[in-house]
Amino acid sequence: MPQGGGAARRIWCEFALIDNVVTEAVTISFADGSIAVVEVGMVAPDDAEVLLGLTLPGFANAHSHAFHRALRGRTQSGQGDFWAWREQMYRVAARLTPENYLDLARATFAEMVAAGYTCVGEFHYVHHRVNGDPYPEANAMGAAIIRAASEAGIRLTLLDACYLRAGASTAVAPEQRRFSDGSVEAWVERVNRLDRLSATDVARIGAAVHSVRALDASSIGVVAEFAARRSMVLHAHVSEQAAENEQALAEYGCTPTDVLTDAGALSPRFTAVHATHLGVDDIVLYALAGATCCFCPTTERDLADGIGPSSALRAAGVALSIGSDQHSVIDPFEELRGIEMDERLRSMKRGNHAATDLLTMGSANGYHSLGWDNGGIIAVGALADLVTVGLESVRLAGLTVGSLLDAVVFSATSEDVSNVIIAGRTVVSAGVHTTLDVASELRRAIAAVDAQTS
Amino acid sequence: MPQGGGAARRIWCEFALIDNVVTEAVTISFADGSIAVVEVGMVAPDDAEVLLGLTLPGFANAHSHAFHRALRGRTQSGQGDFWAWREQMYRVAARLTPENYLDLARATFAEMVAAGYTCVGEFHYVHHRVNGDPYPEANAMGAAIIRAASEAGIRLTLLDACYLRAGASTAVAPEQRRFSDGSVEAWVERVNRLDRLSATDVARIGAAVHSVRALDASSIGVVAEFAARRSMVLHAHVSEQAAENEQALAEYGCTPTDVLTDAGALSPRFTAVHATHLGVDDIVLYALAGATCCFCPTTERDLADGIGPSSALRAAGVALSIGSDQHSVIDPFEELRGIEMDERLRSMKRGNHAATDLLTMGSANGYHSLGWDNGGIIAVGALADLVTVGLESVRLAGLTVGSLLDAVVFSATSEDVSNVIIAGRTVVSAGVHTTLDVASELRRAIAAVDAQTS
Repeated sequence: MPQGGGAARRIWCEFALIDNVVTEAVTISFADGSIAVVEVGMVAPDDAEVLLGLTLPGFANAHSHAFHRALRGRTQSGQGDFWAWREQMYRVAARLTPENYLDLARATFAEMVAAGYTCVGEFHYVHHRVNGDPYPEANAMGAAIIRAASEAGIRLTLLDACYLRAGASTAVAPEQRRFSDGSVEAWVERVNRLDRLSATDVARIGAAVHSVRALDASSIGVVAEFAARRSMVLHAHVSEQAAENEQALAEYGCTPTDVLTDAGALSPRFTAVHATHLGVDDIVLYALAGATCCFCPTTERDLADGIGPSSALRAAGVALSIGSDQHSVIDPFEELRGIEMDERLRSMKRGNHAATDLLTMGSANGYHSLGWDNGGIIAVGALADLVTVGLESVRLAGLTVGSLLDAVVFSATSEDVSNVIIAGRTVVSAGVHTTLDVASELRRAIAAVDAQTS
Repeated sequence: MPQGGGAARRIWCEFALIDNVVTEAVTISFADGSIAVVEVGMVAPDDAEVLLGLTLPGFANAHSHAFHRALRGRTQSGQGDFWAWREQMYRVAARLTPENYLDLARATFAEMVAAGYTCVGEFHYVHHRVNGDPYPEANAMGAAIIRAASEAGIRLTLLDACYLRAGASTAVAPEQRRFSDGSVEAWVERVNRLDRLSATDVARIGAAVHSVRALDASSIGVVAEFAARRSMVLHAHVSEQAAENEQALAEYGCTPTDVLTDAGALSPRFTAVHATHLGVDDIVLYALAGATCCFCPTTERDLADGIGPSSALRAAGVALSIGSDQHSVIDPFEELRGIEMDERLRSMKRGNHAATDLLTMGSANGYHSLGWDNGGIIAVGALADLVTVGLESVRLAGLTVGSLLDAVVFSATSEDVSNVIIAGRTVVSAGVHTTLDVASELRRAIAAVDAQTS
């Protein structure tokens, strides 16, 4: 069988998840970054790379702030709430430059890839100089993130966030100046330019409303209309904290979800990030719109946000996705089981979300949420983004074929990821990133941010 | 400096936790399984083993059911509550023999050691044949566990549990027969014999009341008196499920904690395991008694038990310890941060338990809870049980000396454990158990239990 060099190849998987079923002996051929052929039950062809373990659709990290990686382990001391944490986060944001953010984002994306994430939605709002002035290239920061993803080998949707105010009728605070374009029109103009410059086979641009706190309703409407016209996905932080609901009630007399709905933001292209403090009416609105809710369990624990209504959302037919958000943990298995475990703690019932449902949240739903509708499944024509979980670790010892999927979802960690393929290219092999020394890149990048004067 | 062969040795730690402070360049000498000398700020002596990373007091796993390890990944399918899970657990319990349990417990204990646990409290209630008849050696099962711990190299307190009934005025069910000695007097006689046979420098016997469900109040009193007379620690499952509280209310008109208090069980030697559904009065009783509460966060999530009142217990002065219980996860870091993260989810406040407090729960409090009052700290005269956490992984990349402890507690995993010393002996080196291939031992042992006809 002829092989066209790097452009076409194939793998043989000991086990692969096909149509939500663990299937033995699956040969998958790639062409042009997509899956060209899926064959079941064959012996491994001579020219196929043999991948032992369970091959899954790659995980989509649907909500990331890459620079928060520099905060890991540094915000746990003392008392404090979400808002005190935000002060610490702002101090790191103030130290970013296009140069040091390129390095930090590349290292963070590489950590994601090694953990099994094949696609990331970078919710990006650090656009300008600290004083709010644009860089000579207005999208210098966004361009750094796009380059970082390319160099780390991860598929990217850059969710360019509009951020215009500190809160109702309150101008941005000094530490928020670099987030703001000054007006929604200026945001549109900048994002238009970014989009023209940067769409590739593995990177695209999406839009984001930072939150109903950071934009007035009219500006939200402009962003939503822009995203609709350009068929971009649209994300927003929604109801992560009870205080956000109170602020929306004070300003608009309704919930953040109502504000977004009235502004025309909700659609099948919309993702509500966190969606922690929702009422029944909010849930119905997401269901009616066909929108996605992105849960970030390791962050929602860490920031004491609370437990979102995952079962109620699923019962209403709302798709869920996952994100590692502030990156105190980068481990898709931990996020996925976090959704189920947190629901167990809340409902005191087991078995709320099956392993296959959780995996769909981690893959197909996340890809859809990031605008890659043909990703997150193993099927002909789908994006060739795959993660292989080795089954040899102490953690997984003793599993049977029947319990394999449950064992992986509920007991594996990112350490069990042995192979990662993105757009048909091998990016992680034998558990190691093929081009980057991830730990030393992280150390170097974080030290550089620490050393930067803000 | 003379070295007495295997009986005395020393290590040099890049960082060690001394008096709750991360201290650089610490030399620790051992003699007879204890810490003989602690010297700070020295260069590494020529004869010292150099341990890079952070050396901590070893972790105590204060609540384990070793055989539950065979259930990992096998109880997640479908709906169900704690009681449905218990049916699955009973099916494994029915397959245990002294032979296959020796292998399973050894492999499970070895997994614990590799994860950084240096001491385990095995809450043991599978005493007899399936039909309830004793083995020719009445303590065949307990002896298997003691031997398993010895071969895995872990310090053990075998908490021999009395189990006499299915519930109020209800005889044990067929699947519970092997748990019961028939009477509390028979339990006393058997445990007396076990204790005489088996106390060593690294193993001792403790007592356990399985639960207020499984023993009448009078029998609880006998067990408590026996434990007091023998200066044994005494453990009991308490208020893990709301139904247990309801049953106690129906039978006794009070809480399980009240029942245990009235039976004389509470003392500084007492540990309430789970302590999830407590009232304020229960908390006061534990505080007045100087008792410990053992939280098992990864199990309490998994079994949908709910979130125990860790902050309220700490505010009342009650010491907490940790256990991995049913072993869906064996990772002390995950248990420790679970206590804080679950409290954040409940209270919506951060910073409830500092990293040093969590580490004390994982070490000194657990050792005390298991009857080893001189363990769980790095100090002259303490047990030479130490765990070293490597700082080179991707997870910990970017930490500073100032954030080191928080980074380890909130972001490390069992994979970061590089070295484990128990009673002055190195049991894990370079992340690998020195005598056992843990994953293959687990696979073999679990397969043997699966193959056993019950």
